[in-house]
Amino acid sequence: MQSLAETPFTDALSADQLEDRLRAIGDERYHIHHPFHKLMNAGELTKGQMQAWALNRYCYQAIIPKKDAIILSKSDDPEFRREWRKRIIDHDGEEGARGGMAKWLQLAESLGLDKDVVASKRLAMPATKFAVNAYVDLVANAPLMVAVASSLTELFSPVAISERVPAMLKRYDYINEDTLAYFKPRLHQAPRDAEFALALVKNWATTAERQEAVVGALIEKCDILWAQLDALYHAYVTPGHIPPGAFVPEPQA
Amino acid sequence: MQSLAETPFTDALSADQLEDRLRAIGDERYHIHHPFHKLMNAGELTKGQMQAWALNRYCYQAIIPKKDAIILSKSDDPEFRREWRKRIIDHDGEEGARGGMAKWLQLAESLGLDKDVVASKRLAMPATKFAVNAYVDLVANAPLMVAVASSLTELFSPVAISERVPAMLKRYDYINEDTLAYFKPRLHQAPRDAEFALALVKNWATTAERQEAVVGALIEKCDILWAQLDALYHAYVTPGHIPPGAFVPEPQA
Repeated sequence: MQSLAETPFTDALSADQLEDRLRAIGDERYHIHHPFHKLMNAGELTKGQMQAWALNRYCYQAIIPKKDAIILSKSDDPEFRREWRKRIIDHDGEEGARGGMAKWLQLAESLGLDKDVVASKRLAMPATKFAVNAYVDLVANAPLMVAVASSLTELFSPVAISERVPAMLKRYDYINEDTLAYFKPRLHQAPRDAEFALALVKNWATTAERQEAVVGALIEKCDILWAQLDALYHAYVTPGHIPPGAFVPEPQA
Repeated sequence: MQSLAETPFTDALSADQLEDRLRAIGDERYHIHHPFHKLMNAGELTKGQMQAWALNRYCYQAIIPKKDAIILSKSDDPEFRREWRKRIIDHDGEEGARGGMAKWLQLAESLGLDKDVVASKRLAMPATKFAVNAYVDLVANAPLMVAVASSLTELFSPVAISERVPAMLKRYDYINEDTLAYFKPRLHQAPRDAEFALALVKNWATTAERQEAVVGALIEKCDILWAQLDALYHAYVTPGHIPPGAFVPEPQA
């Protein structure tokens, strides 16, 4: 039986059917279901594996404000831009408030990594960079509303975070609330951003063709997140497959 | 001890030192050394794994003429373009002579795959597409000679092919000379193309800065090839990790 996320459609869906379809993609393909995240939440990753995750995922964090700037640049609507720029402010921070990128570096540092090495990205895996660049390309080459739809993975992230944070605090003795400062504000930022984006997408995607485009964008975004964890699993969980030039954990880590 | 491929340099190398450096990159990072290729040459891949390889690598074959067209478009020199366009002709074929892409589809088909499915790329892994697009981006964003340098993996491919073809013929009873028709012409095309490119690169890269750029391009190209095999290994050798939506071999294959 085909899943809802994969059933082809030729007639336009209603706005609510489209939302169901988008949510079904998350149920099946969001990276919360990836074996690497399952190991992480179960407390089964070594510190070295956790470092590899933080170091590689920094590459993803680092392009978020850039892809949001591309989205801003595609809009002619000051109201849209005022709303969307919040994302850039959240990631880059402002006077007196560090942003998500700085908090991600703090997470990496508190896992024992050198912040400058992480920020340089030079020990990240090529596969991470390729996936992350695919996200920038997706946003750059798509019409505004399709680019907006690719952000809808945020519909699913609060559940992921609310599972991950308590699991990490409980199961890794070197992780504390301070380490995970990145995640707390995401619990209200992500739903705020996702609801705004979802309403726009539902309003815009009224034909089968547009709906196919937004569904495709969300699937591709899920693929981009999934591929990053596949690369991490292969390199740092399956023994003996770290690609040439990439981060090598200390033996004890 | 640092390897020759990784030793930093600040003064310009001689042309021959640069060639040594480029060849050292191949010795260390060319995908002939990847565990997936080692399994292939040892006759240890299942038919389903071989199918996954052929189907995914088609995505790489498919962008070669496109990246060569980008390189052509960067040159102002008819002599260069006359030489470089041979690559496009080799891949796309001409009146009375099928090209490399058609031969790759023949390889896929004789492994039991549907040619149209392969050509559609719809069952290829996202990680494959991300790596392949990284190659197009590399070529598109680099100056002509740096883009040319990224093709220098062809210096190493005749050795790979001359190992792979007899190994495959010997160790897989469903593979014959006809299956592998793609590889035979590559044994003279690749050295012809690589020598031409190498001479140009050696002639152009006379400063440390240019040399660093061409060395970087060749390393990135090796990373692109390596990442494709990492994804194949993770999905089709390590059990249980085929990414959502990607090709699933028949149980008996």
